[in-house]
Amino acid sequence: FKDSTVLCFVTKCPINTRVNKFMALPVTDLAVLNQNQDEVATQMEMMIMETQSKVCKAIEALEDGGQKFLVDKWSKDNSTGGGVTCVLQDGTVFEKAGVNVSVVHGNLTKGAEKQMRARGKQFQRLKDGTLPFIAMGVSSVIHPTNPHCPTIHFNFRYFEVTGRNGEKTWWFGGGTDLTPMYLDENDVKHFHTELKKACDVHDKEYYPNFKTWCDDYFMITIRGERRGVGGIFFDDIEGPDAQSALEFVTSCANAIIPCYVPIITKNKYKSFTEEQKQWQQLRRGRYVEFNLIYDRGTKFGFQTPGARIESILMSLPLTARWQYMHTPKLGSMENQLLDVLKSPRDWV
Amino acid sequence: FKDSTVLCFVTKCPINTRVNKFMALPVTDLAVLNQNQDEVATQMEMMIMETQSKVCKAIEALEDGGQKFLVDKWSKDNSTGGGVTCVLQDGTVFEKAGVNVSVVHGNLTKGAEKQMRARGKQFQRLKDGTLPFIAMGVSSVIHPTNPHCPTIHFNFRYFEVTGRNGEKTWWFGGGTDLTPMYLDENDVKHFHTELKKACDVHDKEYYPNFKTWCDDYFMITIRGERRGVGGIFFDDIEGPDAQSALEFVTSCANAIIPCYVPIITKNKYKSFTEEQKQWQQLRRGRYVEFNLIYDRGTKFGFQTPGARIESILMSLPLTARWQYMHTPKLGSMENQLLDVLKSPRDWV
Repeated sequence: FKDSTVLCFVTKCPINTRVNKFMALPVTDLAVLNQNQDEVATQMEMMIMETQSKVCKAIEALEDGGQKFLVDKWSKDNSTGGGVTCVLQDGTVFEKAGVNVSVVHGNLTKGAEKQMRARGKQFQRLKDGTLPFIAMGVSSVIHPTNPHCPTIHFNFRYFEVTGRNGEKTWWFGGGTDLTPMYLDENDVKHFHTELKKACDVHDKEYYPNFKTWCDDYFMITIRGERRGVGGIFFDDIEGPDAQSALEFVTSCANAIIPCYVPIITKNKYKSFTEEQKQWQQLRRGRYVEFNLIYDRGTKFGFQTPGARIESILMSLPLTARWQYMHTPKLGSMENQLLDVLKSPRDWV
Repeated sequence: FKDSTVLCFVTKCPINTRVNKFMALPVTDLAVLNQNQDEVATQMEMMIMETQSKVCKAIEALEDGGQKFLVDKWSKDNSTGGGVTCVLQDGTVFEKAGVNVSVVHGNLTKGAEKQMRARGKQFQRLKDGTLPFIAMGVSSVIHPTNPHCPTIHFNFRYFEVTGRNGEKTWWFGGGTDLTPMYLDENDVKHFHTELKKACDVHDKEYYPNFKTWCDDYFMITIRGERRGVGGIFFDDIEGPDAQSALEFVTSCANAIIPCYVPIITKNKYKSFTEEQKQWQQLRRGRYVEFNLIYDRGTKFGFQTPGARIESILMSLPLTARWQYMHTPKLGSMENQLLDVLKSPRDWV
């Protein structure tokens, strides 16, 4: 189930067979998914459910304590969608790991429409004044216990708005980024190389553009430093066509396990000191700062009426620390990390 | 130094004598303070420095481990002001205690002016287009170690804008609020009673109005619960005259020690379980959420160019915790607290 050959095979299976491997049934009714199996929305929902399941199983396989993911299937009021939230907490290898899928139907508010128009989208509201949309995505943050094991975050999302004449405006967004507490250049190179491979199959411009976008996005402005060593970040992917865009996002999703698992396998048994654990906790504090102050997805969630707050904030670490004026010594390993967070490097 | 009789005596002393008891020299030059000793801005700067010193000494007296406050005097670039930040960290009784004074001079941006006009202020920019202001305040958060000891926060601030013809628009703001992890009704009553006494001397309407304002302000909307059991919160105090307003704010500042010290003395040796400590850590997480997502002062600080970020974020706890779907049992002490955070009560 871990390599893409198997995945290719699986994606050709009928929907009813594929769902057997999921953490829970998809958000949309199986009958509806079967009926619309050629639609991009259906394929995307299957892809994000599949990604959730693959990542959860890979994490469980790394977790020596035997801890398993807790699976919460939830729905929003008035059949406006729902999600599947999987969380593994207080493990031996992982302090907290969350993988969340959500599929939400609604009508775009004027405010959201305005913001999207500012980004160049064009919509025509229906005669009744509404503008229906579907938003779906998989989102995950994995916080390991060992300070030599970096945190990973990824998110892949799809947005579809239906206008007056049934015309659909759609776009994909997403990304994957790494937050180490200690810099292991080989690990960072490996991570970026795998992402570049996934991008290059689709467009040679993607990796360099999305790498820069990622460095810009994960900026903690108040600190003058990035959250981590980046990866890729993209939004408003509207071409070349929906099927190709979906394939690109699927390649990125398939890259997560080869990006991350070898880094954890390599580092999970490394010994560490109490000071190194405290440094990890301080970096966790910065993670909280980024997510609560800057992250667009988190802020969007806070403003969405009826949003499931526990699924949004599952991204926060189990524990974090804030120490007044903590300044690593010049030349220390902690300071080496800060240098890279202040001036991002090219890794491939 | 702890009772208000002594304080009254002290406030009548010459400035040069009063500063001897401060944690550091005031931000404004002594010569300037002496020259303008009758101005409200001078009196306020002396009051906030005095409050800082009194609170730091009271906290040090409660701290059995002998830890002392670290005192950082800092200045902003281009003589635009500065501050004194005092932090006690990793104590026996206090996990982290910060008391910060800042005095900042600048020119109001169009955005800030617009926001203030929306609150009813009227200004006339100088002929050169500038609108000079002074902002000063003392701000503090004290996080004790024992989960039976509540966190206290207070802030007193003064804002003065000088218009075209030298006319001054000024206002005071501030407040004091308590964040217990476990509800001790007597402690909360004591806290609110002391605040009410301080308010009632000046205006019988103050306490009920500012108590409600406090309950409204410290709302963590995403959680549907307040940060703590409130206290008082006020802004835009513009009357009856500057001297009386300063006296009101001074009464509130003088109430902090009688509000808080008896609660810590009573609870600091209480035994607690590992579960109670974890509950405290979860509540600390909510504290972080309020401060980073909602607190106006913190957000204002983030947007101020050249702001000293370590002085702003000294309000965050040393450690915090986020646990997926933590739900206290019905009838538990943890749940009793949540009830009050969801539906604030009258305490006096």
